[in-house]
Amino acid sequence: MNKVEHIGIAVKNLALSIPLFEKLLNTVCYKTELVESEQVNTAFFKQGETKIELLESADSDGVIAKFIEKKGEGMHHIAFGVDDIESEMKRLQQEGFVLLNEKPKHGADNKLVCFLHPKSTNGVLIELCQEKK
Amino acid sequence: MNKVEHIGIAVKNLALSIPLFEKLLNTVCYKTELVESEQVNTAFFKQGETKIELLESADSDGVIAKFIEKKGEGMHHIAFGVDDIESEMKRLQQEGFVLLNEKPKHGADNKLVCFLHPKSTNGVLIELCQEKK
Repeated sequence: MNKVEHIGIAVKNLALSIPLFEKLLNTVCYKTELVESEQVNTAFFKQGETKIELLESADSDGVIAKFIEKKGEGMHHIAFGVDDIESEMKRLQQEGFVLLNEKPKHGADNKLVCFLHPKSTNGVLIELCQEKK
Repeated sequence: MNKVEHIGIAVKNLALSIPLFEKLLNTVCYKTELVESEQVNTAFFKQGETKIELLESADSDGVIAKFIEKKGEGMHHIAFGVDDIESEMKRLQQEGFVLLNEKPKHGADNKLVCFLHPKSTNGVLIELCQEKK
């Protein structure tokens, strides 16, 4: 792991939250993207080497909708940048962490990603992400 | 705001969570510190320009103990680095955000800090922090 690549924040309404975070972070949203595989609409902001990624469910039955129903809006996950996702997945599995996907999958922003089960990480949903080569 | 200075994670037991996060992040905990004003024991890890800060209540009635009681262990706040905390507090207040302290207070790691009320930030507890000069 080499940096905090992004922090994911679950929101109900992206159209309301984009201007709110533009004011908060004093910077413009530079990209929005639908992640088909997760049915999530995303919006990105830069803060130094880290991105803030807002997540809105594109499906009333999706993971973000369920998260908000259970816990309310707020911090959803931390994503760490890795150089080689497969070797990092192997290392973490050997250390006893539980992977939520056995193979890297396609995430937002041209990334290969893997999530770790929060039960193995003190309740924090962790994402690994590697730039696609 | 210039970067994600740290991400705060609430844990029940620092002695158990420090080795867990050392394995997860593949880096050593470089500092522990008691923040007297908040009655919180903290432990720090580096990830690029951002720190991961574990937070354990030093008082069974403290804010972290109450947070864990209500929401369980997990992500607690995001701290953004600022160059001039007083001017950033003023800007955010003018934008309609609600400050939890009217004056900067002393935080961990030689910082002046201010928190924003999560009701004004989509449920995310935001901290501003400025290196003490």
